Amino acid sequence: MKPLYGGIEAGGTKFVCAVASGPDDIRAEERFPTTTPEETIARALAFFEQQGGGQAIQAVGIASFGPIDPDPRSPTFGYVTNTPKPHWAHTDFAGAVRRALGVPVGFDTDVNVAALGEGRWGAAQGLDTFIYLTIGTGIGGGAVINGELAHGLMHPEMGHTRIPHDWQADPFPGSCSVHGDCWEGLAAGPALEARWKQRGETLPPDHPAWALEADYLAYGVSNLVLVLSPQRVIMGGGVMEQAHLFPMVRRRVQEILNGYVKSPALLEEIDSYIVPPLLGNRAGVLGAIALAERAAQRATAQRA
Amino acid sequence: MKPLYGGIEAGGTKFVCAVASGPDDIRAEERFPTTTPEETIARALAFFEQQGGGQAIQAVGIASFGPIDPDPRSPTFGYVTNTPKPHWAHTDFAGAVRRALGVPVGFDTDVNVAALGEGRWGAAQGLDTFIYLTIGTGIGGGAVINGELAHGLMHPEMGHTRIPHDWQADPFPGSCSVHGDCWEGLAAGPALEARWKQRGETLPPDHPAWALEADYLAYGVSNLVLVLSPQRVIMGGGVMEQAHLFPMVRRRVQEILNGYVKSPALLEEIDSYIVPPLLGNRAGVLGAIALAERAAQRATAQRA
Repeated sequence: MKPLYGGIEAGGTKFVCAVASGPDDIRAEERFPTTTPEETIARALAFFEQQGGGQAIQAVGIASFGPIDPDPRSPTFGYVTNTPKPHWAHTDFAGAVRRALGVPVGFDTDVNVAALGEGRWGAAQGLDTFIYLTIGTGIGGGAVINGELAHGLMHPEMGHTRIPHDWQADPFPGSCSVHGDCWEGLAAGPALEARWKQRGETLPPDHPAWALEADYLAYGVSNLVLVLSPQRVIMGGGVMEQAHLFPMVRRRVQEILNGYVKSPALLEEIDSYIVPPLLGNRAGVLGAIALAERAAQRATAQRA
Repeated sequence: MKPLYGGIEAGGTKFVCAVASGPDDIRAEERFPTTTPEETIARALAFFEQQGGGQAIQAVGIASFGPIDPDPRSPTFGYVTNTPKPHWAHTDFAGAVRRALGVPVGFDTDVNVAALGEGRWGAAQGLDTFIYLTIGTGIGGGAVINGELAHGLMHPEMGHTRIPHDWQADPFPGSCSVHGDCWEGLAAGPALEARWKQRGETLPPDHPAWALEADYLAYGVSNLVLVLSPQRVIMGGGVMEQAHLFPMVRRRVQEILNGYVKSPALLEEIDSYIVPPLLGNRAGVLGAIALAERAAQRATAQRA
């Protein structure tokens, strides 16, 4: 009998819960709106208690909206921390699930969990060091390095790195409320819309918007390649649904690196180096299942 | 009896070899010029065979000039690869040492090994995720993440990331032969000298060169903080011997991040977050001892 896991994709507006052993064996799934922590977490718990067909779930993984504390050594591990979302600030989310179900609980950011999902069942299967990016209303990034998610001090905030900005060619000041023209401020969906006064998906593929967009995306990706030396870079999110961006970004990354990183992955096989995600909008909930699997394995290893 | 390790700091012009159990217990040390691989490696082997006072060394760590292959899964692991240095291209450095001495051999880049040394005995003791930078004739960086060195596809090349460059304020085109105005091209020692037509150490502390230098260093460091979320950033190398740069870089990093990373380490305790190395010019050879210690532990774990 395959072990069963619970996954929660906890977004700011809705929760998606699933019981599964993997992507081909999803036993149950439910979605409901995010209201108060008490009500929403209780509904998730009730779902887990009723599902599985009598087979107990071994662990739960939670991909949570933030900011959160994902550090298992911290006294506030598993908390949603100082979020502006009403009622949710300083909520012990993982603790509530662990106490109610009595199983190990994994807890991480939405983008880190999606990275884990793509590593387990998606576009980064078999790799131990890779990056998952989502380019949408913001730019978020998760990194798996030597098989483990990178957390460090808190968790990465790759979207807020700075890249070259040629103000003469692009006088748009950037849309980030904190940094102005950081990577996200120059290249996320809202920047596209504010710069060209129309939504990105309405711009034709030959519009100059896309060359500029590919340029900014490529600067950010090149920096990540140089800092982390990933074996692959996965680019998802609403903006990357414009699939014509991929060849443009790949070519610009090669131009920017200018042959410096002498790896066939970058020099010859870039079509399989910078790729779209495979799990699509399933990355969150499947990643949460993968996170639960890891939490169970870690608990078993600690008992041994 | 403390276990003894051998360390080699293999530079392009000289080798430093040591036998030690740690920084307070260095039993022997020798330096000699880097000539042909046959001659230089033989001299290192002769040193290790004669030292230790009868006590066998458990493993050897090598911090090598590059480019190298540090991937233990690769068929050319332990090789100096396509270096322009005469005689050294495609040399099986680690293999020669392992076959002669019959002990486990660790092999990595000079900057990665220095990072390991600072983590074991220096400015990053007790941390599991940190960055070690050297700002000198180039900019190099090593990252320890979750206690392991980051390699991925090859190894990081942090010095070649791109940062904002205001051409009006600083028309200097950058000194990197591959990328022009990448981070290293704008901020390493040769850039300072070329921009101001005098060597950095001859510029007085109130010269405008330093505010610009701190600005570039802070942009690069801020990007690394956002990508890797390190618990500490160690900045060494010749340029950072201008100690007045540290408070300037710290202040600019805070201004650039603009409060976005809500960690006391950055908001309140930045004096102990961005720091000089503690091991100084001992980081290479002591790091090699730390790398040997890891190689021995790994071999023991694999036998168990």
